[in-house]
Amino acid sequence: MKSFIKVAPDSHFPIQNLPYGIFSTVENPNPRVGVAIGDEILDLSVIHALIEKHVPELGQKPMIFKESSLNSFMSLGRPIWKAVRKCLQNILSADNSELRDDAELRAKAFVAQNLANMHLPAQIGDYTDFYASKEHATNVGTMFRGSDNALMPNWTHLPVGYHGRSSSVVVSGTALRRPCGQRLLAKNNPPVFGASIRLDFELEMAFIIGVGNELGNAIPINKANNHIFGVVLMNDWSGPFLGKNFGTSISPWVVTLDALEPFLVKGPEQKPEPLPYLRDNGPSAYNVQLEAKIKPYDSNAYKTVTRSNLKYMYWSFKQQIAHHTVGGCNMRPGDLCGTGTISGPSEGSRGSLLELTWNGQNEIDYDNGIKRKFIEDGDEVVLTGYCQGEGYIVGFGDCSGKILPAINSP
Amino acid sequence: MKSFIKVAPDSHFPIQNLPYGIFSTVENPNPRVGVAIGDEILDLSVIHALIEKHVPELGQKPMIFKESSLNSFMSLGRPIWKAVRKCLQNILSADNSELRDDAELRAKAFVAQNLANMHLPAQIGDYTDFYASKEHATNVGTMFRGSDNALMPNWTHLPVGYHGRSSSVVVSGTALRRPCGQRLLAKNNPPVFGASIRLDFELEMAFIIGVGNELGNAIPINKANNHIFGVVLMNDWSGPFLGKNFGTSISPWVVTLDALEPFLVKGPEQKPEPLPYLRDNGPSAYNVQLEAKIKPYDSNAYKTVTRSNLKYMYWSFKQQIAHHTVGGCNMRPGDLCGTGTISGPSEGSRGSLLELTWNGQNEIDYDNGIKRKFIEDGDEVVLTGYCQGEGYIVGFGDCSGKILPAINSP
Ligand SMILES: [Ca+2]
Ligand SMILES: [Ca+2]
Ligand SMILES: [Mg+2]
Ligand SMILES: [Mg+2]
Ligand code: NI
Repeated sequence: MKSFIKVAPDSHFPIQNLPYGIFSTVENPNPRVGVAIGDEILDLSVIHALIEKHVPELGQKPMIFKESSLNSFMSLGRPIWKAVRKCLQNILSADNSELRDDAELRAKAFVAQNLANMHLPAQIGDYTDFYASKEHATNVGTMFRGSDNALMPNWTHLPVGYHGRSSSVVVSGTALRRPCGQRLLAKNNPPVFGASIRLDFELEMAFIIGVGNELGNAIPINKANNHIFGVVLMNDWSGPFLGKNFGTSISPWVVTLDALEPFLVKGPEQKPEPLPYLRDNGPSAYNVQLEAKIKPYDSNAYKTVTRSNLKYMYWSFKQQIAHHTVGGCNMRPGDLCGTGTISGPSEGSRGSLLELTWNGQNEIDYDNGIKRKFIEDGDEVVLTGYCQGEGYIVGFGDCSGKILPAINSP
Repeated sequence: MKSFIKVAPDSHFPIQNLPYGIFSTVENPNPRVGVAIGDEILDLSVIHALIEKHVPELGQKPMIFKESSLNSFMSLGRPIWKAVRKCLQNILSADNSELRDDAELRAKAFVAQNLANMHLPAQIGDYTDFYASKEHATNVGTMFRGSDNALMPNWTHLPVGYHGRSSSVVVSGTALRRPCGQRLLAKNNPPVFGASIRLDFELEMAFIIGVGNELGNAIPINKANNHIFGVVLMNDWSGPFLGKNFGTSISPWVVTLDALEPFLVKGPEQKPEPLPYLRDNGPSAYNVQLEAKIKPYDSNAYKTVTRSNLKYMYWSFKQQIAHHTVGGCNMRPGDLCGTGTISGPSEGSRGSLLELTWNGQNEIDYDNGIKRKFIEDGDEVVLTGYCQGEGYIVGFGDCSGKILPAINSP
């Protein structure tokens, strides 16, 4: 499969991927729906009539690609997602003349990615952060409770998850302020007020709910995939003891579950066997190679500090959904579910500075003798991830963010 | 101050109150903005021109009262809220003929409350549940950690809060399903799957954010009230060990902070003195008498199981906002902040069955020999609350909900 749009061999966005995002441009500042192909964006609001022609099941929906989030499109469900994906692969294919040879339409329909502003892809109703990597949970547990009690007793029985703050989810590229709050200098002393001193990144991915469920009705595990639209990279920044509400960054391009299907692999063995509602006849892990790079403010170079993989995650997306809804909780289009920090089995695959420096005991060496335990003001963190196909890559692009100094106490 | 609309002496909704809500009717199923007065609703979408005439600062906003949530109106800020409140008190006053003597407009502008469907008043972006009652925290802490460690060490230093699930916030009157999940029958045994057996109510109130703040900028405590639009009753249903995402009920009428101002009182003394960013030159507690009634499925009578008061709350709304945003967290119009269960100093003022039965050790006696420890299928819980003025009441109406049987395992 090849597109008439030039796609470099190392591009994250070949015709096999076609992730969805929300973008705007200087000429047209209205955020709208686009699909990434090579270095370009195909503006779906411009070619909506072509899509409606090829996907009659979609009906006449001239507005759906003009909206400022993917929520309406995502709520249409997997059969429509699949049909639109097939249609776009068709329209973009090298041997289809429809768009290729229509110079006027082509000129309007493509926008260079480097001229576009990316926005949050979804209006996020609720954000849940799971804690689904056994290696991560074990590392953190070992640090704070010792190796004998590293995993909490329920950890192997269910995918633990926490509610997060949806208001502070931002798109890649948004700079964030170091948070302030109360801190204990010494046990039994009163807390003091100040800026977080141990700011960290968390290498995560997140899936976005396309189709929701009614309050009171669980989503059974064998139907869970029908509810997931796609997946993004996520940096769930943290400032220990000072809360986690100052920002969570996600990548702008939502890679669909359909594009990820060729990269399904078996996940970690689960022992003890989960209860029936969590039993998953795999493969349902995804082989996504992940990487975090940091550029210290006083350096010009990015250094890769960890390489991990989504396939290390213990609890699958499907298990996370089945558990999240089993008590009757309703999910809505646009809900965001983070994996939790994804650490792998080796020291070089730990997904946070907390683990990489082992609670600040070690330092990371950057270029020119620069050393860091945690993140300093002006430092930039970039997450990236991709699946290696045969002759092509299905990638997620970047999820980047820079930390700005704290604003002083109010 | 008296209205030309008849208001019974024990009505929760005299002209001194004027709470906002979202309602629809059989004749006009579009949810829209109304204000409660006596047993009626004044339909603001019908009289918007009259409001625009009296509140020139509002400008021409014909759509703002036709929306299906209060979010747009709330985002306009306190000066507009105050001006519209004054205008409505004027229009409704017994000696103003403008609406009173316009029979045609009156016929269109008023809807009987018992003919209206109430909807959620706000589109809730994020829901935070605080844990701000010292008596409640002490009761629960004593039960599970013993009286020596009842309060966690940070409890007296900051208003502890948790993210909640906004998707499952429902309006009063919505029936909810008993949740299912994993449960431990005995320590060190594997968990089993089943319906929650200790379902409980939590007597809470919640404030709704009107005006938000930018990510990275805290709201100082002396500005916090400018961000609060109003207050509702909240039942934060719980099913211990099985999560809390199956439902949170709120009352439909948002009582504004302006209507509550006459009921400001001094809150509990705070020792140790909070850090400067949390110092609050009171009075900033509100004297709201609260009550929870239960009607067991096998009885015809409601029994009051507890009487509490919002003024017992240790951390004020202002302190909750100052703390929530001090790390840079942004709040948005429609965000919901619960107080946590409000228990008072006496046994009869405990705000949950967990406390009232002291972890199931005691039973509550209802009529005809019916006894309960927790809530059974078909039982109904009604919260109510009001402020007693001189010759009038500023009330919150009811927040009710019934528990339906669990749907079996998926
Ligand atoms: Ca996390
Ligand atoms: Ca609660
Ligand atoms: Mg975060
Ligand atoms: Mg709840
Ligand atoms: Ni939320």
